[in-house]
Amino acid sequence: MIYVALVHHPVVNRQGERIVAAVTNLDIHDIARAARTYGVTGYFLVTPVAAQRAMAMGLVDHWIHGVGGQINPDRREALELVSIVGDLNEVRDRVALQTGGRPRFYGTTARHWPNGLSWEVLRKELANNDGGSVLLFGTASGLEDSVLARVDGVLAPIECGRPYNHLSVRSAVAIALDRLLGARN
Amino acid sequence: MIYVALVHHPVVNRQGERIVAAVTNLDIHDIARAARTYGVTGYFLVTPVAAQRAMAMGLVDHWIHGVGGQINPDRREALELVSIVGDLNEVRDRVALQTGGRPRFYGTTARHWPNGLSWEVLRKELANNDGGSVLLFGTASGLEDSVLARVDGVLAPIECGRPYNHLSVRSAVAIALDRLLGARN
Repeated sequence: MIYVALVHHPVVNRQGERIVAAVTNLDIHDIARAARTYGVTGYFLVTPVAAQRAMAMGLVDHWIHGVGGQINPDRREALELVSIVGDLNEVRDRVALQTGGRPRFYGTTARHWPNGLSWEVLRKELANNDGGSVLLFGTASGLEDSVLARVDGVLAPIECGRPYNHLSVRSAVAIALDRLLGARN
Repeated sequence: MIYVALVHHPVVNRQGERIVAAVTNLDIHDIARAARTYGVTGYFLVTPVAAQRAMAMGLVDHWIHGVGGQINPDRREALELVSIVGDLNEVRDRVALQTGGRPRFYGTTARHWPNGLSWEVLRKELANNDGGSVLLFGTASGLEDSVLARVDGVLAPIECGRPYNHLSVRSAVAIALDRLLGARN
């Protein structure tokens, strides 16, 4: 089982400083739709700010139990994947509860990171993780090094050989799911 | 030379009716950033509504000549790819002027379309189009059949074998550029 976690803290800003990024509506929708498309089991929205979690829950509720889901059942089906949690420990506990095993965490970054996992290696590894695999994506300018230092593997950047490397996190998640879980048609 | 065009009319709504979709800010940013990442030559925002073109020009101007670009030069570099035009004839004229040849247009759809081009075939074809290649993406629920019927080829849907197929256009463009122009690392 594969999970996506969108992390709002600890992430860095463009100056490399640790910040708490704000939850944004379109991150919820776009990533939930991509997760649903590629058969992801769950999508965790991770923020330590209780007020932001409450706001995000209100948005998601509109599409699951409110009028949004009645008008657009496809959107409901995607947003039903969303869980809103305070930190990565909670992600680990919830995944372990679902899988009954030890979840493996994979970090992503647009920066260089030593001993990065190749896309092909992770694609194969995901098929064999019985305890569940969690793909971590950072908002703002990405996950802080402290997160990357603690995961089971850090994926090589998307298109690291190019001069420009500033995809939105929404685009990065879509491309990553396609590379890791796509049909290869 | 490869171009992306985001079409706001003629597109269809979820009932299949022809509509004019609204321009949205994040479509401009996310797709410009993906286009810049994958070395796309130009990104056309296509809408027949003059007031929407004016609004979009104001947004783009903020990031090219205004304070946005001073604060975030990476964003300026992406938004410099954006051209705002009224219809696909204008896209054709502008690309022909740049390439000096006859541009080829490729449609995309999440629906089944007879004789769809495979991703591998189009990937190879793009390398050989001296007159420029324009990848068309529809907002709302996608390009109207009238558009798909007139292009040089229609690309097979992304992940057509899966039960759920409702990616955002931002995600679809990101995945398409990665499949067609990505480094394959």
